[in-house]
Amino acid sequence: MTTTEESSAAPGGREVSEEQRRIEERLTEQVVASFAGAGDARLREVLESLTRHLHAFVRDVRLTEQEWKQAIDFLTATGHITDDKRQEFILLSDVLGASMQTIAVNNEAYRDATEATVFGPFFVDDAPVVGNGGDMAGGAPGEPCWVEGTVRDTDGTPVPGARVEVWEADEDGFYDVQYDDGRVAGRGHLFTEPDGSFRFWCLTPTPYPIPHDGPVGRLLEAAGRSPVRAAHLHFMVTATNLRTLVTHIFVEGDPQLEIGDSVFGVKESLVKRFERQSPGTPTPDGRDLGDRTWTKARFDIVLAPAAGA
Amino acid sequence: MTTTEESSAAPGGREVSEEQRRIEERLTEQVVASFAGAGDARLREVLESLTRHLHAFVRDVRLTEQEWKQAIDFLTATGHITDDKRQEFILLSDVLGASMQTIAVNNEAYRDATEATVFGPFFVDDAPVVGNGGDMAGGAPGEPCWVEGTVRDTDGTPVPGARVEVWEADEDGFYDVQYDDGRVAGRGHLFTEPDGSFRFWCLTPTPYPIPHDGPVGRLLEAAGRSPVRAAHLHFMVTATNLRTLVTHIFVEGDPQLEIGDSVFGVKESLVKRFERQSPGTPTPDGRDLGDRTWTKARFDIVLAPAAGA
Ligand SMILES: [Cu+2]
Ligand SMILES: [Fe+3]
Ligand SMILES: [Fe+3]
Repeated sequence: MTTTEESSAAPGGREVSEEQRRIEERLTEQVVASFAGAGDARLREVLESLTRHLHAFVRDVRLTEQEWKQAIDFLTATGHITDDKRQEFILLSDVLGASMQTIAVNNEAYRDATEATVFGPFFVDDAPVVGNGGDMAGGAPGEPCWVEGTVRDTDGTPVPGARVEVWEADEDGFYDVQYDDGRVAGRGHLFTEPDGSFRFWCLTPTPYPIPHDGPVGRLLEAAGRSPVRAAHLHFMVTATNLRTLVTHIFVEGDPQLEIGDSVFGVKESLVKRFERQSPGTPTPDGRDLGDRTWTKARFDIVLAPAAGA
Repeated sequence: MTTTEESSAAPGGREVSEEQRRIEERLTEQVVASFAGAGDARLREVLESLTRHLHAFVRDVRLTEQEWKQAIDFLTATGHITDDKRQEFILLSDVLGASMQTIAVNNEAYRDATEATVFGPFFVDDAPVVGNGGDMAGGAPGEPCWVEGTVRDTDGTPVPGARVEVWEADEDGFYDVQYDDGRVAGRGHLFTEPDGSFRFWCLTPTPYPIPHDGPVGRLLEAAGRSPVRAAHLHFMVTATNLRTLVTHIFVEGDPQLEIGDSVFGVKESLVKRFERQSPGTPTPDGRDLGDRTWTKARFDIVLAPAAGA
């Protein structure tokens, strides 16, 4: 629950009389009380808290009736652009940092376990097995990138057989599922070796904008914010008795890290050096890349124990 | 702005480590900072406050990823049932008391001025002039009701020529605009006499449910709440240099007042006695109601000065 102080002062020096404050607070308590009969205790808790914070917001900003109407219109437009392929409410949650806050709340920091970040809308079940040393790019356009690392538990013990799922956008900023031709590219999985190690080819991650031709894009524009996500490579790592890790790695030096990731997914510990290699530099597995540059990154993963494990 | 204390403790005795709390709070501050470039200072203020309260809600209830997904699905369904005739987001705002809180914030109590309440979705511009003593019912089914009163300013001076708009549901619980036949009934307006007085026939108000066959109805059901509004008669009163009053009067003894008005519109000062009269009781204007009962109510209205007037 929030403290009751949160609504005790109007912001920006706006004065509210004692009587007025009492009227506003009584209304909030009346709404909170209306949930007393909820069959499910958790539903009751969530609705009570939602009511308190929502009312405190209306009171704190002294929301005008015109602004209330704009909010209704915004939500209506957000609902109307949302369909099977476009989820504008998730975008809204993302750009307000609510998605990332939910991730934070559900993935409490555990000793030196690798930090989690947003899942994003582009994961696909049943991505191909690529295998250790294979190429996840699947023909997608972009600069080749070699990623290697190990999976360990928080005691430092290597985790063999951990499933490592990887997915990413191509250099044009699109995931395979955003094309209409049914391609499968820029995604795949492998299992760690007996020593916990993994390695694969993919593409050097590049920044891309979240869909921004709808209400959320207009909101970002009015707020002077970029819709662009910092370049990243998605990971989901699962292993028996360990907490599933959903995360990204980001690219050191990506200017978008300074500008700001549009969904607040960046954590310092997840920013990795992608070392660019001149054409002709020998590759770790002898792959011939001709006259192309390529990059090399390392990601050592530490999984927390599963809840109750 | 909220106090920072609002997020400093997890509810229900759930313990959050110092480090975890710091991570969660830093994320909120990062999102708040992202609005620093908003062109409009008010937009910035609103988005910053929205972010703080939304994040505090997620943290306070320790929202699960499953619950986050349910919230996205709920908003999506709310968006999809909303069209030109059905506004489920307004219903949502209503049942969470956010509409009424907005009304409260924008209609600060002013000495003994009459209190405001929700506008509702059923007002229509250009309702017929009925005139003093006329019948607003327009043939809608229900028990006849005589309402009389005066409009005064807060100094007690009668306000002549004030426009008094009235609208209400029929005894079946529907407003005229909810029928498909284009009828105009249960609404109209008049202007006060030189002594500030008004009088008209309408229908004794009866309780009716807000539309409850959508996501908001399901939410109310899960929360154990009634969708029914306490019986009421809507008023909008406008006069030069005085604050426009949007309000209702409610019916003393209506059992829904105890059960709870589904949109929290009730204020004690607005509950009026509707005295039921036996068949044959002479009417104030000599109208012959045959063997029907009728009711009589009084509503004396006090208008606050207009802002800046
Ligand atoms: Cu809050
Ligand atoms: Fe992504
Ligand atoms: Fe109504």
